[in-house]
Amino acid sequence: MSMISVAEAIARLRKDSSVRVAVEACELKACAGRVLATDIVAGINVPPADNSAMDGYALRREDWKGADRPLDVSQRITAGSPPAPLKQGTAARIFTGAEIPEGADLVVMQENCKTDGRSVRMEKVGPPGANIRPKGQDIKRGAVVLKAGRRIRPQDIGLIASLGFAEVDVWQRLKVALVSTGSELVEPGEQIKPGQIYNSNHYMLDTLLRNWGFEVVDFGITGDDPQILGEVMAKASRKADAIVTTGGVSVGEEDHVKAVVESLGRLDLWRVAIKPGKPFAFGDVMGSPFIGLPGNPVSAWVTILVIARPFLFDCQGISHHEIVPLRQTALFDQKGCSREVYLRVRSGKDGVEVFPQQSSGALYSTAWGDGMVVQHPDQDINHGDTVDVIPFVLFN
Amino acid sequence: MSMISVAEAIARLRKDSSVRVAVEACELKACAGRVLATDIVAGINVPPADNSAMDGYALRREDWKGADRPLDVSQRITAGSPPAPLKQGTAARIFTGAEIPEGADLVVMQENCKTDGRSVRMEKVGPPGANIRPKGQDIKRGAVVLKAGRRIRPQDIGLIASLGFAEVDVWQRLKVALVSTGSELVEPGEQIKPGQIYNSNHYMLDTLLRNWGFEVVDFGITGDDPQILGEVMAKASRKADAIVTTGGVSVGEEDHVKAVVESLGRLDLWRVAIKPGKPFAFGDVMGSPFIGLPGNPVSAWVTILVIARPFLFDCQGISHHEIVPLRQTALFDQKGCSREVYLRVRSGKDGVEVFPQQSSGALYSTAWGDGMVVQHPDQDINHGDTVDVIPFVLFN
Repeated sequence: MSMISVAEAIARLRKDSSVRVAVEACELKACAGRVLATDIVAGINVPPADNSAMDGYALRREDWKGADRPLDVSQRITAGSPPAPLKQGTAARIFTGAEIPEGADLVVMQENCKTDGRSVRMEKVGPPGANIRPKGQDIKRGAVVLKAGRRIRPQDIGLIASLGFAEVDVWQRLKVALVSTGSELVEPGEQIKPGQIYNSNHYMLDTLLRNWGFEVVDFGITGDDPQILGEVMAKASRKADAIVTTGGVSVGEEDHVKAVVESLGRLDLWRVAIKPGKPFAFGDVMGSPFIGLPGNPVSAWVTILVIARPFLFDCQGISHHEIVPLRQTALFDQKGCSREVYLRVRSGKDGVEVFPQQSSGALYSTAWGDGMVVQHPDQDINHGDTVDVIPFVLFN
Repeated sequence: MSMISVAEAIARLRKDSSVRVAVEACELKACAGRVLATDIVAGINVPPADNSAMDGYALRREDWKGADRPLDVSQRITAGSPPAPLKQGTAARIFTGAEIPEGADLVVMQENCKTDGRSVRMEKVGPPGANIRPKGQDIKRGAVVLKAGRRIRPQDIGLIASLGFAEVDVWQRLKVALVSTGSELVEPGEQIKPGQIYNSNHYMLDTLLRNWGFEVVDFGITGDDPQILGEVMAKASRKADAIVTTGGVSVGEEDHVKAVVESLGRLDLWRVAIKPGKPFAFGDVMGSPFIGLPGNPVSAWVTILVIARPFLFDCQGISHHEIVPLRQTALFDQKGCSREVYLRVRSGKDGVEVFPQQSSGALYSTAWGDGMVVQHPDQDINHGDTVDVIPFVLFN
C-alpha cells in the first residue's frame, strides 16, 4: 500500500463519479441550497416593458420647447397600471417602475419639474431614453440565466421568481448513510465509563452533510461486531445513495470495516499523503459507493472536506465546486513534511495564526479556527510567507 | 434629508440594538446555524484519560532492556475497554484510542514490534510519553470552549458532542415579518399583465433571512392601500420581533409606507450614500424595529446585506459578525462617485471581473456574480488596482 497524493486520491474517487439521484420538482421557497437539474431559460423579458427609473414625468423629447412652455398632464401612470398611448404635446405623471406609455421617449425626474397639477414645467430635459429602463435590460427572453448543476442561492431564487417560475427541477437530495464504528463510543447525554469517549464525529458529519443539502440516513454507532456491521452496511446500501463511515479502517486487528466491506463488494484502502487524515478507504457496498473516513475527529473532518466532498458533490449533480484557496500571510513558522498538511488557522488583520496543538484528536482546533492553511509537501512555512488558506465557509 | 455614510447608517441602526429573543434548549442535531445563548464549559477532560495514538504495545520505559529481550504480553486493551494496571516487566497489546494502563508510560507502534502472541520484541522504544495522547490534551475540564453569541457550525457541534452535551441553550430564532409593497407585483406562477412585474424581492429575502437562521413571518404582497398596509403592519409588530418591508419608502406620492409607519410609531427616512441602495428607512412600529428596504431588487439586496444585516444579527444575539473584505485585483476600470458603490463581480484566477450592467434593477448581476467590490466614495478604480472584495459567502 503505497502513499498517494491528495490530488490523486480526489481524482481516483471522481474518475467514475456520476449523478446518483433523480429529478424532482421543487417549490421556489423550498429550493435554497438545492441543485438545479435543468437550465433556467427566461420565458419573458425583464423588465417586460420599458419602465420609469424615477418618479417624474414622461414625455416625447420633441414636444419639449423650453422651461417656459408647460405641457398638459394628460394621464397618471402608477406601477402596475397599464398606460394609454401618450397624447401628442402632453406629459404623463409617472412613478418608479411604471410602464412608459407608447409615444414617450424619456422621463424627467420630479425634482426638475414644477406643476400645478394640470400642467408641468420642466427646467431641463435629458436625451431620448433618459431615466427609462428598457424592456429586457436585465434579461432577454430565451436567455439561459442559470445552468443545471448550480446550487441555488438566495439571489438565484430572486432571479427565478422575477421570471415568473413558481417551481424548478432539482436533483433529489443525495441520501448519505452515516455509520459510526467503535465500541468505545458513547452518545452525548449518556454517562461515560473509563475507556469510553463521546461520539463527536457523527454529530459533526451529520450537520456538515445536511448543510451540503444531503439527506442523512442515520445508522448511529455500530460497535465493532462484524456481523452487525455487515447487516448495517447491507441495509445502508439499500436505503442510501452513498455510505460514509468513521473509524475501523486502519490495519489494526480491531478494525473490521475492511473485511465486512470486502465481503459485500470491494474496498481500496489508501494511504493518502495528507495530515491529519490517513487512512482513507473507498469502495463499493452492493452497488453503493463507500467512503471510510478515519476515526480521529480532525482526520475525519479534513478528509471529508478535502477528499470526499468533491466526490459527493459530483454524486449530487453539482457542477462547479472547485475551491480556490486565498493567499494570506502566515504569522507562524512550520516545518514541512512529506505529506500535505492542513493546519487549522484563524484569520486576523495581519494574517493567519496557527492553532498550537495540531494533533489529529484535537477537534477544538477546528472550532477555534476559521479555516485551514494548505501546507504543501516539503513546504517550510516561515513567518511572513504568503500561504494558501481555505476559509471553512468556502467548503459550504 | 441630508446624505449619511454607509458606516453612519449601520452605526445609527446598531446604536440601541439589543437581543430581542428569549433562550430555549435545543437538541444537538438541530442546533446548526443557531446562536449559543450561554458559554459552553467543558465538564470533562478530552480525552478523558491518557490513550494510545497508535496500534502497538504499551509498556513502562524502564522495563525495556533491548531488542533481544522480549516482554510478556500481559493484557489486551481495545478502545472502550477499561485496562487493568500493567504488570511490572510486561507489555500490553493496545489499539488506537484505547486507554493507557496504569504503570505504562509509552506506546511502541506495532510496525516496530515482533510478536509470537505471548511475548513481544521491540527494536526501538521512544521516550516516556511516546505515542500517548495525554488526558485533557484537547480540552481541560472547566475550559470555556465556545462563547455565547456564536453561530454554531458543524465542527462546533462535534466539539459540543465530544463533551457529552446532548442539548445546548440557544437564542430563539428571530422572527422577521416580511412585507412586499407595490400594486405592480404579481406572484410567480401567475399570469402577468401589462405594467406588472413578478415579485422577486420577497423570495430572495425570505431565503436570505431563513439562511441566517431567522424565522420568516410571511405577509406576502400588500399593494399600496394605506388602510390594509396599516393593518398588516400592526399585525406584523405583534407576530414578529422585527419588520422588513420592500418598496414604498421613497418620497413619491404612491409610497404610503412612510405615512403608515409614522402613524403607528416612528420612521426615519435616510438618504444613505450607497449605490445601489437609497432610500433606506428605519423606525419602530408599536415597539418592533422597522426596516424599509428599497423596492429595486439589487438595492434591496445590497442594503439588507450591508446595512440591515449587522442590526438583525445583533437582535438575534450573534456577537461577532463583522465582515473583513478580501483584497483582490480589479480587472476593470470604474470611475468613483460621491457614494459607496457595491459592484457585483466575479472572481477568477487573475482577479475580479465586473458585471457590465450595474443598474439597480438588474438582479441578474447578483446571480451572475460571486461577490461585490466595495468602491469607496470618490475612489476611481483602474485595471490592476487592488480593491476590497466581499464574496457573497461571507454574508452567510
